[in-house]
Amino acid sequence: MPADNVMFSRMYGDDSPIAAFATTPGNSALTLIRCSGKSAIEIFSPVFSPERIKDAPGSTVVHGWIIISANSEKIDEVLVSVFRAPKSYTGEDSLDICCHGGPSAGKAVMDVLKRAGFRDALPGEFTFRAFMNGKLDLTRCEAVMELVSARTETGRSHAMSRLGGSLETEIGEIKKLLVEALCGAEIYLDYSEDEIDAGEKVDRLPGQDIALTALERLKRLSASWQFERIYQEGITAVIAGRPNAGKSSLFNALLKEERSIVTEVPGTTRDWIEAWVSINGIPVRLIDTAGLRESADSVEKIGVERSRKILLEADIILYLIDGEIGITEEDKDFIAGADGAQACLLSVWNKADIAPAQMLSLADKKPVSVSAKTCEGIADLCAAVASAVQDNLPVRQEQGNCAVGTTRQKNLVDAACCALEEALSLAQKEEPLDMIAPLLREAVNALGEITGEVSTADILEEMFSRFCVGK
Amino acid sequence: MPADNVMFSRMYGDDSPIAAFATTPGNSALTLIRCSGKSAIEIFSPVFSPERIKDAPGSTVVHGWIIISANSEKIDEVLVSVFRAPKSYTGEDSLDICCHGGPSAGKAVMDVLKRAGFRDALPGEFTFRAFMNGKLDLTRCEAVMELVSARTETGRSHAMSRLGGSLETEIGEIKKLLVEALCGAEIYLDYSEDEIDAGEKVDRLPGQDIALTALERLKRLSASWQFERIYQEGITAVIAGRPNAGKSSLFNALLKEERSIVTEVPGTTRDWIEAWVSINGIPVRLIDTAGLRESADSVEKIGVERSRKILLEADIILYLIDGEIGITEEDKDFIAGADGAQACLLSVWNKADIAPAQMLSLADKKPVSVSAKTCEGIADLCAAVASAVQDNLPVRQEQGNCAVGTTRQKNLVDAACCALEEALSLAQKEEPLDMIAPLLREAVNALGEITGEVSTADILEEMFSRFCVGK
Repeated sequence: MPADNVMFSRMYGDDSPIAAFATTPGNSALTLIRCSGKSAIEIFSPVFSPERIKDAPGSTVVHGWIIISANSEKIDEVLVSVFRAPKSYTGEDSLDICCHGGPSAGKAVMDVLKRAGFRDALPGEFTFRAFMNGKLDLTRCEAVMELVSARTETGRSHAMSRLGGSLETEIGEIKKLLVEALCGAEIYLDYSEDEIDAGEKVDRLPGQDIALTALERLKRLSASWQFERIYQEGITAVIAGRPNAGKSSLFNALLKEERSIVTEVPGTTRDWIEAWVSINGIPVRLIDTAGLRESADSVEKIGVERSRKILLEADIILYLIDGEIGITEEDKDFIAGADGAQACLLSVWNKADIAPAQMLSLADKKPVSVSAKTCEGIADLCAAVASAVQDNLPVRQEQGNCAVGTTRQKNLVDAACCALEEALSLAQKEEPLDMIAPLLREAVNALGEITGEVSTADILEEMFSRFCVGK
Repeated sequence: MPADNVMFSRMYGDDSPIAAFATTPGNSALTLIRCSGKSAIEIFSPVFSPERIKDAPGSTVVHGWIIISANSEKIDEVLVSVFRAPKSYTGEDSLDICCHGGPSAGKAVMDVLKRAGFRDALPGEFTFRAFMNGKLDLTRCEAVMELVSARTETGRSHAMSRLGGSLETEIGEIKKLLVEALCGAEIYLDYSEDEIDAGEKVDRLPGQDIALTALERLKRLSASWQFERIYQEGITAVIAGRPNAGKSSLFNALLKEERSIVTEVPGTTRDWIEAWVSINGIPVRLIDTAGLRESADSVEKIGVERSRKILLEADIILYLIDGEIGITEEDKDFIAGADGAQACLLSVWNKADIAPAQMLSLADKKPVSVSAKTCEGIADLCAAVASAVQDNLPVRQEQGNCAVGTTRQKNLVDAACCALEEALSLAQKEEPLDMIAPLLREAVNALGEITGEVSTADILEEMFSRFCVGK
């Protein structure tokens, strides 16, 4: 439920009728347009035949035609799902219009809707309204966005858990503990006022055990982000190696064997090829640097420069050794040079089908043996990537599904942790309760901000504007 | 309504539960999955919570969760529109499942549906079932596909007219005329049998005026295809010219000024850039050959070869003259050389903002003057393209909206025309009625095939397999 202190912004704060494409335009069978807002159904009925849709009960589907109201020209044959406030996603009167797909029908219908009085929805505006109308707390709103952008099955299932309310519940429980501790402190202050000095030193915070439990749960939540972030943002793996080591072949083998998420990156000019793949459930942005140094002699210098820049972005470097040629001095230099780098380097021995792997001279680097050609060893390589990712995580995720899903949530959990730790340390130092109580209140407020009970218009706008349109 | 003589094919002919994505997967807010078939709702209910969806009335929307039936794990929060036979698109029990968008949620839901007993729908299978169940005649089925692939507003509006039944009505009326003429002939045959020689020569077909009216309307329909085809298939325009004439700038200017339909063509390797734009309502596949000859010296020969091949595909060549340099010998050669070609050549004088256009030495070729940089003259160029397209059409479309929308329809209209003309010519030659009547029957059958009253499994399968999946 939104707090009373939310300032309504001019952009997001109104309930005017809005419309947006909820599906990607393309060569699909259908296109879905979402509409919501005050009088949405009344405004819609003149551009729909039969017009009696305005009397349709909520949660029903009406078949008919989008028409130009002036001359009744039929624009598209559609199915319209009618929802009546408060029983809708946004909590307002809403319509889901299922038009024909392809590049034209949806656009034509949208034009009609605009003329009828709907305006373009802002990014995340439907979900924003759902929040304002008390349909979803902020953690669930964010889970909606996470779900839409989830790149792997694991990412989807974590987001789903938060959409189901796991985080909202956990935050609620921790907050209850803190409020209990806070009440203890304040009651102590209230009662003791007449009898003892309010500045009286205490060695224990009333309800200190409760506060310690809360702190432990907060820390667990904070730590969950290390793991969660990987499923949200993915990691970058760069395939490097000498010319003809088989970089493109390995790139293609990984795309073929593992589930490719987005096969190509948009944009007309690019110097390297990249694709998202799911490696053991981890979203990996895989970059093939082949072609960067090998072609275009005249721009060699630029190529080397860019190559270096890409390597700086890498979380993992898959360094490919040409098995047919064996380890060269250049290979050794690269591998040795990567020692101090941010990224984790995995040596990969390629062409194992014709040349069995040799040990590298550097004893601690055992190459993974693959054949990009036959796809032999690709599963081992994926396992090596996954374990490299996990080994680099300082904290493993605890059991239980509950985890924070966004940087915003993580930062607020940390803020609550911080305030609570300070409160406990002051109590330890036997500082007066009236110095400790405000810190507990600060922690409670930070948790309230996570779910949106305490929020400001600025925070909300910043958050929802990162949503996609139509959500 | 389908004919009784349709042979059910093993592939398309059953009513087993099918499912398909009806929207393009992508970074959208929502994804729509369509399900249809015998017991679709019963099969669906165990993987949905609340399970009582199986009792939901038709044309209602139910909110709930897709779950794994074994352990009730929630997979996605969805809205499900329930349709009950015969009140659905297919005429069967159907479900439209509105899942969260993005790459993961829809896939996860589809996996659950598959395990529950739905199979992947074949291309066009939903519409095929709609046809088989008498919900749509064939011209309307084809209009569905046209609508989805309509590239411009004009294309959409023509398809819409056919979906509304304009062609079905026109074909029905012409058929009625032919049946009238046929009945006249057959009654004449029946009645005259005893009295006169069945082989009696006639100089007039009974109902000849009616047959002539039918022929005229058929010819008008046949001619409509010339125009219609352009909106269906579009034309190819290739931008050619010397290096630095500004080909890419013109390409970009056209994309920016006119409505770009699809900004980029998929595929990792390409030697040229192309995009669909709507030029005065005509879908134009615009090809920029810049880079084909200008880069990669070593592959110059291949470039020239490909350039030539692309020019062969062109309906229109936009030949760009570098205004700053003026007309060169190379330009003259190209323009003169294009004289005998299939494609229509439009000379375009670029950089008009710094160098006003000169007349070409070839008196009949007046260049269109543009500045790709300032977008000056782009509207004139578009008008020139549109009128070049129309000038090359032997027959302009008659008034009235009715037109054929597919090659299949056009060929059947032509077959009916042919048979009818032969019938009329035999009547002219005073041939016996029993030779004429079968020709009239042939024409009637061809028209019946257009709407699907007469059809064979082969034809249907061939037709629906060209549809997109989910339709």
